Amino acid sequence: MGSQSDWPTMQRAANILDELNVAYDAKIVSAHRTPDRMYMFGKRAADEGYQVIIAGAGGAAHLPGMLSALTHLPVLGVPVQSKAMSGLDSLLSIVQMPAGIPTGTLAIGEAGATNAGLMAAAILALQDADLSDRLQKWRAARAVAVAETPSDEV
Amino acid sequence: MGSQSDWPTMQRAANILDELNVAYDAKIVSAHRTPDRMYMFGKRAADEGYQVIIAGAGGAAHLPGMLSALTHLPVLGVPVQSKAMSGLDSLLSIVQMPAGIPTGTLAIGEAGATNAGLMAAAILALQDADLSDRLQKWRAARAVAVAETPSDEV
Amino acid sequence: MGSQSDWPTMQRAANILDELNVAYDAKIVSAHRTPDRMYMFGKRAADEGYQVIIAGAGGAAHLPGMLSALTHLPVLGVPVQSKAMSGLDSLLSIVQMPAGIPTGTLAIGEAGATNAGLMAAAILALQDADLSDRLQKWRAARAVAVAETPSDEV
Amino acid sequence: MGSQSDWPTMQRAANILDELNVAYDAKIVSAHRTPDRMYMFGKRAADEGYQVIIAGAGGAAHLPGMLSALTHLPVLGVPVQSKAMSGLDSLLSIVQMPAGIPTGTLAIGEAGATNAGLMAAAILALQDADLSDRLQKWRAARAVAVAETPSDEV
Amino acid sequence: MGSQSDWPTMQRAANILDELNVAYDAKIVSAHRTPDRMYMFGKRAADEGYQVIIAGAGGAAHLPGMLSALTHLPVLGVPVQSKAMSGLDSLLSIVQMPAGIPTGTLAIGEAGATNAGLMAAAILALQDADLSDRLQKWRAARAVAVAETPSDEV
Amino acid sequence: MGSQSDWPTMQRAANILDELNVAYDAKIVSAHRTPDRMYMFGKRAADEGYQVIIAGAGGAAHLPGMLSALTHLPVLGVPVQSKAMSGLDSLLSIVQMPAGIPTGTLAIGEAGATNAGLMAAAILALQDADLSDRLQKWRAARAVAVAETPSDEV
Amino acid sequence: MGSQSDWPTMQRAANILDELNVAYDAKIVSAHRTPDRMYMFGKRAADEGYQVIIAGAGGAAHLPGMLSALTHLPVLGVPVQSKAMSGLDSLLSIVQMPAGIPTGTLAIGEAGATNAGLMAAAILALQDADLSDRLQKWRAARAVAVAETPSDEV
Amino acid sequence: MGSQSDWPTMQRAANILDELNVAYDAKIVSAHRTPDRMYMFGKRAADEGYQVIIAGAGGAAHLPGMLSALTHLPVLGVPVQSKAMSGLDSLLSIVQMPAGIPTGTLAIGEAGATNAGLMAAAILALQDADLSDRLQKWRAARAVAVAETPSDEV
Repeated sequence: MGSQSDWPTMQRAANILDELNVAYDAKIVSAHRTPDRMYMFGKRAADEGYQVIIAGAGGAAHLPGMLSALTHLPVLGVPVQSKAMSGLDSLLSIVQMPAGIPTGTLAIGEAGATNAGLMAAAILALQDADLSDRLQKWRAARAVAVAETPSDEV
Repeated sequence: MGSQSDWPTMQRAANILDELNVAYDAKIVSAHRTPDRMYMFGKRAADEGYQVIIAGAGGAAHLPGMLSALTHLPVLGVPVQSKAMSGLDSLLSIVQMPAGIPTGTLAIGEAGATNAGLMAAAILALQDADLSDRLQKWRAARAVAVAETPSDEV
Repeated sequence: MGSQSDWPTMQRAANILDELNVAYDAKIVSAHRTPDRMYMFGKRAADEGYQVIIAGAGGAAHLPGMLSALTHLPVLGVPVQSKAMSGLDSLLSIVQMPAGIPTGTLAIGEAGATNAGLMAAAILALQDADLSDRLQKWRAARAVAVAETPSDEV
Repeated sequence: MGSQSDWPTMQRAANILDELNVAYDAKIVSAHRTPDRMYMFGKRAADEGYQVIIAGAGGAAHLPGMLSALTHLPVLGVPVQSKAMSGLDSLLSIVQMPAGIPTGTLAIGEAGATNAGLMAAAILALQDADLSDRLQKWRAARAVAVAETPSDEV
Repeated sequence: MGSQSDWPTMQRAANILDELNVAYDAKIVSAHRTPDRMYMFGKRAADEGYQVIIAGAGGAAHLPGMLSALTHLPVLGVPVQSKAMSGLDSLLSIVQMPAGIPTGTLAIGEAGATNAGLMAAAILALQDADLSDRLQKWRAARAVAVAETPSDEV
Repeated sequence: MGSQSDWPTMQRAANILDELNVAYDAKIVSAHRTPDRMYMFGKRAADEGYQVIIAGAGGAAHLPGMLSALTHLPVLGVPVQSKAMSGLDSLLSIVQMPAGIPTGTLAIGEAGATNAGLMAAAILALQDADLSDRLQKWRAARAVAVAETPSDEV
Repeated sequence: MGSQSDWPTMQRAANILDELNVAYDAKIVSAHRTPDRMYMFGKRAADEGYQVIIAGAGGAAHLPGMLSALTHLPVLGVPVQSKAMSGLDSLLSIVQMPAGIPTGTLAIGEAGATNAGLMAAAILALQDADLSDRLQKWRAARAVAVAETPSDEV
Repeated sequence: MGSQSDWPTMQRAANILDELNVAYDAKIVSAHRTPDRMYMFGKRAADEGYQVIIAGAGGAAHLPGMLSALTHLPVLGVPVQSKAMSGLDSLLSIVQMPAGIPTGTLAIGEAGATNAGLMAAAILALQDADLSDRLQKWRAARAVAVAETPSDEV
């Protein structure tokens, strides 16, 4: 992610990966404040064995797209909700990539971070039948947990 | 895709998959006009051997998200440019999924369709070293093709 | 509605139906988390005797449009106010349906839920003179309740 | 509708009602240029035997909401695509009605007009089994007409 | 104004008119809940001696435009800040009037209400030299009150 | 107006004033390119006998608001439709004035220019019974000209 | 800046200039309330030795563009976050200047004010090697301060 | 600029620099397709003697902000008008930079490119009296060229 301040959002992705027992690294790599770190991370990510990259950023959110430019690995982008524009700027900065450099973009904010974790798991599950099984169980459990009728007590 | 009218956009995804020699099916599955077809396709997609689903739709674009709900496979969504809202409605209908059901969303229109093809290839390349090689070469060739200086003749 | 969290909004529709003495069922049917439940509900709604369906959802709000696709009954959609986009995403996801599959959309949030209840009543009142009478009295009472001049005490 | 210039859009509603053999009147009633005509039409609509009102207007589109205020009949609103704002102004002017006065709003432009006709038919079909049958056949025919695969010739 | 809930905003207009010693009536006239009251008020406003009408409303804000349709007097519209759309819906519903029926629209919220009072005064001052003098002094006093440098204490 | 390129829009205001036989001057006064001319015009407008100012501008449209700051006369603003933002930038730049400095804003583009002419006439008609009569006749003629039913020939 | 209320935002620019030891004046110059003061300031700024002007304003934010019109010095604009539109109105009013009159616009709110200070420093550093050195050290220190991994304690 | 396709827009900046006799290089440096080229250019720009960088890009426009991250030189950003979003995505991707990394952003499209050239000239003119003189003359000539009254012939 681009900043410590993105962690409360991005931690949702980490939580899902923990729940599904998927190994990951959580790093702060700022496209704007630490461009060298970002450049090196992106160039080496495939060689260092990463398979999927989740990048969250807000405002003029360049981290996901720049990583997409620096690696051929699949990159998932999470638009962090920004103060003035409520994440519309983050969303457009991440999703409107030019032809040739894809970033798979999730929803603005915490839902998007959760879903980035789930999508990374779904990608990895293509080559990991156990993970696929855990993922399907996770989804089925959530469906079952939806009550049939609304409750006033909540 | 949701309609024959989406084909000029979605064909860009097919073109990329052709270029990278990735097998695919192109189907018209409308969430709104053929909900049964969509429901059956989504439920059976994993069992029928699909690995990644690319879904394009415009306006109140429900196809990508509904397929995400019906399968645990990774789903990529392409917001087709709509008439009145220029695809902003398509984009928000696809990307703003609730926590639990991810859709990896690409850019509005043809760039997004091209990138959906590339992202599907990047996902499949994680378990296919030859495809990974073809993808890296495709990207390298495109980088080389960028001229150093602008040309007035274009 | 799509989620327990939509109930504080959608309860406004229930309240109006209670006030006007119209029978209804309140169910949680999530397009994304419980697509099977949604599919079955939509397919069977007409046969089970429902006459009008009110569906509320937020964000990438697919429930109203999917129910419109699954039944020929009139479907009313309520865009629940979302966190990042204040319901603009919900509104566009519900209202921008393609030709062939209508969803009658009400305002974002509680006003829309109240109005969904009123519109359902107005539809049912076409074949129920007593309900029509109750509805007209409800409207007349509200008009009378509007003060002529503003009050500083409020 | 509010103006002759809205007819190319609103004619789609008329076409659907013709196809489904539903009787209707097409009138020009401008909230802004002919407020007396609008006021009288709204006040008398129920007594004159109208059952559903479809109102289309663009820009600061007040006709649907004003008719909703003047009659207890169900009113469907069609946001006509405007020049500068592409119908976003029309949409918000129609859909964002306050609690108490519902307008069932359809999509911007021709799709919305088509759907207003379909929704009116769905409402009337609740008390007309033959119309319900025609409506279901119309919908089924459209589903069948969706090709399985895209065609490059189009 | 359209509702008691608009009074905290619209009171700013009243305050300015009080400060400038301009006579006015403050009334609640709802386009949607009391369309008869609105219709009568608009039709009779000129005959009853009103010279300028200030109308404030929020959401699908039809009151200013409908009064503009019902009277040839100058009408000023104030978009009250709405909950979900922050007044963008109110603004577009008021300002985007079709050719032929003008509404002079002020800013969203309290600033707009203050300015509606000032603009009404400026209009009336064209035929009232004393009011023109009071208005010019009010403006001059405000200019003088602007400090040369910012203060940290505020 | 701010530029020769605004004339096709602003000419609509001139046309209305011609139709209603109201005297006016049409000037190009650019807030950005000729700030001195604008400053002098605004400061002297009241003394030179102007009664109402109509200012049209596009993009970052500062002319209407700056004239409002420079004169106590009523100022009407017309947002000229801009290329990239379709006049949304013009509209917000004109209407969102701070408390103290009112600009009565009309619709984006030609409808707004027409209405600026009509509103200026309505303001001047408060002290000119003949003009009021002409204005009322103009409005009545337009209402009569609205056909009762739509015509396919158009 | 245009108002005392802009100071909490604009103080971020002052803080940066203090940190980098750049001399500056902080003045309140309102385009709308004190147009004479603004006009004089803009006309004389170059002669009085100013080199870069930072102007912050909100809503219909005319100060930055008007200063750009009045001086040939580089002008930086900061869109102050507004109440109803969250600064989108401020941003468009500042950035959408017509060809010929540039305003270098920074982000909405405090980040933009900080960056206006940094950009002014970067401009002045072109002719001041010591300042360039201080600026580079400031940037390097910030990069170093970015932690490698996120911390839950924050 | 990021692409040959940006040249018709960015050429406006080049034209202004030509008119004002300012030396410049025009390069294609794509943040996404040639990230290495961009990285090297940004890191070396100051050492190679560049003083001001003008960067134009469209859609998810990362080039201006990434160059701002890679160099301490002043960077000016031009949002190129994009297809689906008309440059709103470009604008937000460029202007909404986080505190610490400024990009001075100009208007969307050709006006912005022209103004980027003028702003670069204004910055350089701080240390070049002859350029300052040429810039002031250019501005004065443009002011004189504004006609006093509009012409119907155009």
